[in-house]
Amino acid sequence: MGTAIAQSWLAAGIETTVWNRTTKTLAGAVVTDSAAAAVAANRLVVVCLLDDDSVTSTLDGVDLAGKDLVNLTTGTPEQGRARAEWAAERGARFVDGGIMAVPPMIGTPGAFVFYSGSQAIVDEHADVLGVPARCHYVGEDPGHAALYDVALLSGMYGMFAGITHAFALVRAEGIDPVGFAPLLVDWVTATTGVAHDMAKRLNTGDFATDVTSNLAMQVAGTATFLDTAKAQGVDARLLTPLFDLMARRVAAGFGAEDNASLVDELR
Amino acid sequence: MGTAIAQSWLAAGIETTVWNRTTKTLAGAVVTDSAAAAVAANRLVVVCLLDDDSVTSTLDGVDLAGKDLVNLTTGTPEQGRARAEWAAERGARFVDGGIMAVPPMIGTPGAFVFYSGSQAIVDEHADVLGVPARCHYVGEDPGHAALYDVALLSGMYGMFAGITHAFALVRAEGIDPVGFAPLLVDWVTATTGVAHDMAKRLNTGDFATDVTSNLAMQVAGTATFLDTAKAQGVDARLLTPLFDLMARRVAAGFGAEDNASLVDELR
Repeated sequence: MGTAIAQSWLAAGIETTVWNRTTKTLAGAVVTDSAAAAVAANRLVVVCLLDDDSVTSTLDGVDLAGKDLVNLTTGTPEQGRARAEWAAERGARFVDGGIMAVPPMIGTPGAFVFYSGSQAIVDEHADVLGVPARCHYVGEDPGHAALYDVALLSGMYGMFAGITHAFALVRAEGIDPVGFAPLLVDWVTATTGVAHDMAKRLNTGDFATDVTSNLAMQVAGTATFLDTAKAQGVDARLLTPLFDLMARRVAAGFGAEDNASLVDELR
Repeated sequence: MGTAIAQSWLAAGIETTVWNRTTKTLAGAVVTDSAAAAVAANRLVVVCLLDDDSVTSTLDGVDLAGKDLVNLTTGTPEQGRARAEWAAERGARFVDGGIMAVPPMIGTPGAFVFYSGSQAIVDEHADVLGVPARCHYVGEDPGHAALYDVALLSGMYGMFAGITHAFALVRAEGIDPVGFAPLLVDWVTATTGVAHDMAKRLNTGDFATDVTSNLAMQVAGTATFLDTAKAQGVDARLLTPLFDLMARRVAAGFGAEDNASLVDELR
C-alpha cells in the first residue's frame, strides 16, 4: 500500500522521500536508509505500516517536532487516539487515516481515505493527500477515522458472508456461478439501500411505523432458508447468528418492528 | 403480496378472479367464495399463500386438470419439486416462482420473479405474468426458482448482518447514522462486485492467482475488527463465523487463497 501511494505522488510530479525496511530503490523517489532521515526530509510525514506496534517501533526516538504526521496504518479507534496523544507529546500535529481501497485502487476515483484529528493537516496538504485517494474528513476525534473504516469494512464482511453462503447454495446444484453472480450482485446492491431507512429509524427510535417486512414475518421465513441450506448440504453458520438475533427480538415482544431495532440488540 | 399482484393486473385492465380466506371485495375483481371457484374461472391459476402447507390445504380436492398452475408461494427447492409432481398428478402444467420484491415494489421495474418448471406457461402467459414483475426463467428444474430465490435472499441477509454490526459500531459513539448510511451503502455496493471474480474462480478452481487480499492478510486484520467491536461494547457474533471460517482455511494451509475458496468450505 505504501508503494502504491508513493508511486501516485511520483506520477503526479510530487517530490517524495521514502523509507521502509526492504525498499532500496523506488523509481523517481529519494530513498533513505533510515526512518529518521525520511521524516527529516519534509514537514508532511505519511506513515503506512503493518500495524500500530510497527508505527511505535519505526518512529521511536525519531524527531517529530513541527511535523504534520498522517497515519494511514490500519488500527482501532483507541490506537488512533493513543497515537494522537503520542504525536502531541512529540510536538507533531496529527491526523489518523483509514484507507478505503486496496492497492490497485490507489489513484483511481473510487479510492478514499477517512481522516480524523487535525483538520489543518488535511486542509493545508489537500493537494498532496488528495492524489492517492479522495480525502473524507470525519471530525476532530482521532479515533473516528478508524471507527468509520472498521464499520464500513465490517459491513462489507457481512456482505461477503452472505454471498459466500449464496454461492455455496447454488454450487450444490451445478448452477453456473458466473451466470448467477450478476443476479446476486444486483439484488444485494438494490437491497443495501435499506440502510438509509434503518438510519432514520435509529435517529427517531421509531422501529414500528410503516414497516414493510417486520421481524415476526422474517423469522417465520427463516425455516425456508435453513431447510434449503440443509437440503443442499450447506452449513448455515454464516446466517444463523442474525436469524437467532431476530428470533430473540421477536421473543422479547418486538415482532412488529423493523430490522433496525436489531442494532441496539448487539450492544 | 397476493393483493398487490391482483391489483397490478386490475390496473392493467386484465380480468381477474380472486379468492383468499378473508377478502370479500377487491375493487374491479371477481371475488369467489371458494378456492375451487377461483381456480375454475381461468386456465391460468396463480397461487400466492403463506407457505407450502397452505397450498396443499387450499387446493386439496380442487380440479386442476388442464390448468396452468403458477406457484408464487415462498418455499424450498424440494417443495417446488414436490409441488410439480403433485400438479402433474392432477393434470396441470406447473411452474414455480420466487418473487424478488416486497409488496410495494410489485408493478415497478425493480421487481422480478424467478420461474422454473414449465417454460410454456411463462411464454404463453408472458403478457399477464410480466405485469406485476419481470419474468426471469431459470430452467426446467421446478426447484431452481426457489433455490435462486433463497440464495439471493441469503446473500441479502448476510449484508443485513454486516450493516447491523456497522451501525452498532458508530452508534456507540453518537455518530449520526443518517450521515453514515450513504458511506456504508456506497462501500458495500462497490465491494459487492467481488462476486463476479469469485464466480470466475469457482468455475476455474483457481483461488490463488492474482489475489488482491489473500485470506492470511485478512485473518491478520480481523483482530482490529474484534478489538474495535469489544471497545465499542458491540457483540461481534454476526461477524465471527466468517472470521472463524477464514482462520480455519488459513490454518489448513490455504492462506494465499482468495475468499472464493471459502465457498466449498461451507459444504
